[in-house]
Amino acid sequence: MVALDSDPTGLHRVLDDTVVLPQAAQRLDTRRELWPDEVRIRVEKLNLDAASFRQLERKHAGDGDAVRREVLDIVATRGKMQNPETGSGGMLVGTVEEVGPRSPLGLRPGDRVATLVSLTLTPLVIEDDLRSWDGRGEQVPCDGYAVLFGRSIAAVLPDDLPADLSLSVMDVCGAPALTARVVEGYDAPTVAVIGGGGKSGSLSLAAARHAGAGRTIGVVPHEREATQLRESGLADEVVVADARNPIALRDAVTAAGGPADVTVVCVDVPGCEGGAILATAERGTVVFFSMATSFAAAALGAEGLAADVTMLVGNGYAPGHAAYALELLRENDGVRRLFEARLEAHA
Amino acid sequence: MVALDSDPTGLHRVLDDTVVLPQAAQRLDTRRELWPDEVRIRVEKLNLDAASFRQLERKHAGDGDAVRREVLDIVATRGKMQNPETGSGGMLVGTVEEVGPRSPLGLRPGDRVATLVSLTLTPLVIEDDLRSWDGRGEQVPCDGYAVLFGRSIAAVLPDDLPADLSLSVMDVCGAPALTARVVEGYDAPTVAVIGGGGKSGSLSLAAARHAGAGRTIGVVPHEREATQLRESGLADEVVVADARNPIALRDAVTAAGGPADVTVVCVDVPGCEGGAILATAERGTVVFFSMATSFAAAALGAEGLAADVTMLVGNGYAPGHAAYALELLRENDGVRRLFEARLEAHA
Repeated sequence: MVALDSDPTGLHRVLDDTVVLPQAAQRLDTRRELWPDEVRIRVEKLNLDAASFRQLERKHAGDGDAVRREVLDIVATRGKMQNPETGSGGMLVGTVEEVGPRSPLGLRPGDRVATLVSLTLTPLVIEDDLRSWDGRGEQVPCDGYAVLFGRSIAAVLPDDLPADLSLSVMDVCGAPALTARVVEGYDAPTVAVIGGGGKSGSLSLAAARHAGAGRTIGVVPHEREATQLRESGLADEVVVADARNPIALRDAVTAAGGPADVTVVCVDVPGCEGGAILATAERGTVVFFSMATSFAAAALGAEGLAADVTMLVGNGYAPGHAAYALELLRENDGVRRLFEARLEAHA
Repeated sequence: MVALDSDPTGLHRVLDDTVVLPQAAQRLDTRRELWPDEVRIRVEKLNLDAASFRQLERKHAGDGDAVRREVLDIVATRGKMQNPETGSGGMLVGTVEEVGPRSPLGLRPGDRVATLVSLTLTPLVIEDDLRSWDGRGEQVPCDGYAVLFGRSIAAVLPDDLPADLSLSVMDVCGAPALTARVVEGYDAPTVAVIGGGGKSGSLSLAAARHAGAGRTIGVVPHEREATQLRESGLADEVVVADARNPIALRDAVTAAGGPADVTVVCVDVPGCEGGAILATAERGTVVFFSMATSFAAAALGAEGLAADVTMLVGNGYAPGHAAYALELLRENDGVRRLFEARLEAHA
């Protein structure tokens, strides 16, 4: 085999016939030997993406053995964990085993890390047949190895927090980082977070206040969640509205002190684009973090409403995003309580 | 019938049972009488969206009469021209017939205008059975009326340019306006326009230079278009690359003086997200104007590449966008030649 130079994107491990990035590839090269800019991780746990796990569970009618066999089959066939139906992957936890001499990631052997790039682009080999997993939950105990490229992201797990809590925060840490950056571009702006009671939503509310928001508004779908969010103290105003009803959302945010200079969309339901645009002031910014966002609905919606708003695709990466999100959790009891309650509910 | 107050979004003309904006509605109220903030236009021509017209043409195997009957049927049934397959509409040209006393649009009866909001949300009545149209082209001569809401956009057609040329420019005028705004946020940035030889692409190149770009790079799919773009003088560098090949696009932009501080995506083919992200410098901005953009591919792509880039959904509206685009055409012979050549090719 010809010794290829490595590419920081991982292109050198793509086995497809056409040139595609690892995420789009059908199959990755999982050889154990590292290119000089790579890192190998000894895996201890996979965290399957929730949408992916639910699809597998439905498909196999809750038969854990069948789910386990399918995950093994996907990883053996593709060299990565990417659900062919949902296209999604997840993340993993493990310990750094070997660091190539030209790796730019700053990791050392023995570091316990979580990977913040998706499993959909991470070469992975499972060596224990997943025998410690019953196939009935997203948390998958696993022995095996994975490879990180030059352009990858892995965060060292902090000592002062339980691993599950850190992981749960890191999973959504792009949202508070980008929210803070956008809020800093305005002078004491009004910030509305649609889905303010969820993981990315509560962190975004904390980030907005930390970054200098003049007023924060949390929008939630029902009264129970409103009570929880009010108790957390993360938002100046908490309102209940169906985010899919554009007029109801606009009116709710307006009544709470809007329109918003910055609107952050954190609810994973389709059809929230119009309401988010209408809830936002002229020259304001809408940040879409929901994967249910339709590009066309946002673009045509703003044009159809003659809305002079900036619309951002929520990028899950920003330098220092994991450390920033963990810091927000440490400094805000309200955030921590919401995250812990969520972990307990899923335990 | 109860006299409803009007809403600037046009909500008062939605006849659906659930609360949706006019664009998402199945059926609009096309009554001739105006609410106080509305404007009625006497229609002279419809400009069907290209994707919509091609779908109708294919469906009816080029039978112009059948295409005409289907357009009449859609408009009669829905009260607006929105192709149920493609979801798209188009725009219209006409003369202002009546202006409600509280209309904020600044129009006067007799103004000849183009509507810059989509036909998908514009109440429309056709009164001549489209008898002057053979069903074989996107330009539809039409007598009838249409209604604009409080939040609508209509541009008065200038006297010094042929109407078809003005329309062709107005059709894509959001792209140069947003490009200029983004470019102004950097200091003499390098700007790459993917699809720089097309309508929105060539205007975006002109806008980038006008707004202070230090270097402009036009990326086109083949040598013929490269020659045309070089002759126009709109770009400092012109390179040929397949925008769907992320590594080829990155390498082409880098070789031309990149990575780009601002990358503008104007090609209507899927799969350009990864290459656009890779062609962009850290802290740079990618503006997606292509309706073929996948929100998830952009969001997950940037995260998977650990790319600290700002990604914008190309909003088709900005204040003064039509006037700015027409000004760019008047001041740049290169833009004008490209647009005129395109109109001739389609005549």
